[in-house]
Amino acid sequence: MSLTQHNTPQRIGIIAGIGLYPVELAKLLKNKNYEIYCAAIRDHALPEIAKYCVEYQPMGLGQFGKAIRFFKKHNITSVTMAGGVKKRLLFSADFLWKHFPDFYTARIFSQHILSKQKSQGNDSLLMRCVEAFELQGIHITAATDYAPELIMKQTTLTKRRPSSSEWKDIQYGWKVAREIGRLDIGQSVAVKNQSIIAVEALEGTDGCISRAGSLCPSGGFTIIKIGKPNQDMRFDVPYFGVETLKNLVASGACVLAMEAGKTVTVEAQECADFADKNDLCVVFVEDGTAQMAD
Amino acid sequence: MSLTQHNTPQRIGIIAGIGLYPVELAKLLKNKNYEIYCAAIRDHALPEIAKYCVEYQPMGLGQFGKAIRFFKKHNITSVTMAGGVKKRLLFSADFLWKHFPDFYTARIFSQHILSKQKSQGNDSLLMRCVEAFELQGIHITAATDYAPELIMKQTTLTKRRPSSSEWKDIQYGWKVAREIGRLDIGQSVAVKNQSIIAVEALEGTDGCISRAGSLCPSGGFTIIKIGKPNQDMRFDVPYFGVETLKNLVASGACVLAMEAGKTVTVEAQECADFADKNDLCVVFVEDGTAQMAD
Repeated sequence: MSLTQHNTPQRIGIIAGIGLYPVELAKLLKNKNYEIYCAAIRDHALPEIAKYCVEYQPMGLGQFGKAIRFFKKHNITSVTMAGGVKKRLLFSADFLWKHFPDFYTARIFSQHILSKQKSQGNDSLLMRCVEAFELQGIHITAATDYAPELIMKQTTLTKRRPSSSEWKDIQYGWKVAREIGRLDIGQSVAVKNQSIIAVEALEGTDGCISRAGSLCPSGGFTIIKIGKPNQDMRFDVPYFGVETLKNLVASGACVLAMEAGKTVTVEAQECADFADKNDLCVVFVEDGTAQMAD
Repeated sequence: MSLTQHNTPQRIGIIAGIGLYPVELAKLLKNKNYEIYCAAIRDHALPEIAKYCVEYQPMGLGQFGKAIRFFKKHNITSVTMAGGVKKRLLFSADFLWKHFPDFYTARIFSQHILSKQKSQGNDSLLMRCVEAFELQGIHITAATDYAPELIMKQTTLTKRRPSSSEWKDIQYGWKVAREIGRLDIGQSVAVKNQSIIAVEALEGTDGCISRAGSLCPSGGFTIIKIGKPNQDMRFDVPYFGVETLKNLVASGACVLAMEAGKTVTVEAQECADFADKNDLCVVFVEDGTAQMAD
């Protein structure tokens, strides 16, 4: 570590996944005078993130060794993860060919798989990644430590508020979504008339919303998307953006309820505008089992 | 009730849903000298059930009044439900047109919906149906009370047994499926490498299996399908047949684990033959969290 580093802008690494989130995060952190070094996951990260970065390194989803070498070379000791990862790639037939796991990654995960002590669930895999970085002196940090304004507070984002029957669906779905998170299955459920239409697992939130639309062509259902009971704010934090809302409209959903304090977005204003134009209701509540006062 | 009835073969009603199960059940009960009166749900029941029945009455999914009048007219006091119901129809836009809820059904369910005291989940809706029949002196009974041989006992149905890693997936998925049942969401989950690929909700088991196939094109996953912690053997009992196994093969699944004592089939031998031909492993265990001894 150079002696001059403390006088220069603080360096930060970003591992960039899918969507606008990492791009807007990079822009926001650059405006806060951070120097950004980005390891961009191939087939995931949008290339425009490069314009906010000092250095930019594409990597395969399996190339942790490459990412670690990149960050070490640039004396990066704090790295934040932003944007989703296509978890289903891990189950695709050509994963090994397309994402070239490097020697370091292969070693980490073969140890993990051979240890046979833990579940192979998302949380366990992610913690294994974190440990791999920590072993190399690189700390995985939460983006919200640098930009706490990204966290949604308790509010109704839209002009439209939930009806009393929609509140019942939120309350019912919240309890179920909490269990789904506790079991490390997924973040969201679709509910109508206090009956569960769809539960998110490997397909992700968008897949779950689309399926609910097919299963409930009469529409008018509610999506509840929340964090885990002990949500780690360093990764897999529930995110929402205009793309999520477009999918809700296309599928016929009418309410999105998310968890205040555990949801991030860089598109709050755009989301509010889009939702109002499409008569969607979007609420952030601290505890969905209790109805929020108007 | 006529005085001669006790000397005549016992009369039984069947409300027939989807698939071979109600047909084979009717055949089996006829062979046991029961006289069968069948209310066949339109767009669900196979018409060949009629040849095993004394009387046959098509009904819409919403026509409980019609079914009750049919059973009362024929002095039927015990009715069993067999075969699944397309629950998603309840959420379709044209349900009211296609399934003509009659006045009696409308009254039952409007009271249920207006009472606002209970969840509108499957169990609650089914119990409401049972109560509606009981009020009219018709008892809903379990098919397995008349034909206990339909219940699968603990066994490996196939030549192929689960590998040790497949046992781990069964153990992991079993715990999750138990919770999914407890929450009244669905009966099955798809698992690979101790990671949940798909969870069944309104789409049903076949929909869940197909989705798992799309999400995991490399195949080799395990389906766990089990009863509720307090499974009511009168309805919604996990069923499996050759159609289930065909879907498993088409989707790339390699193991099906179900619950001994809470699963019914009328096609055990056909299933064993089909599974062996396709190198599937099918096991019935009492508690999937403990590995069955070979």
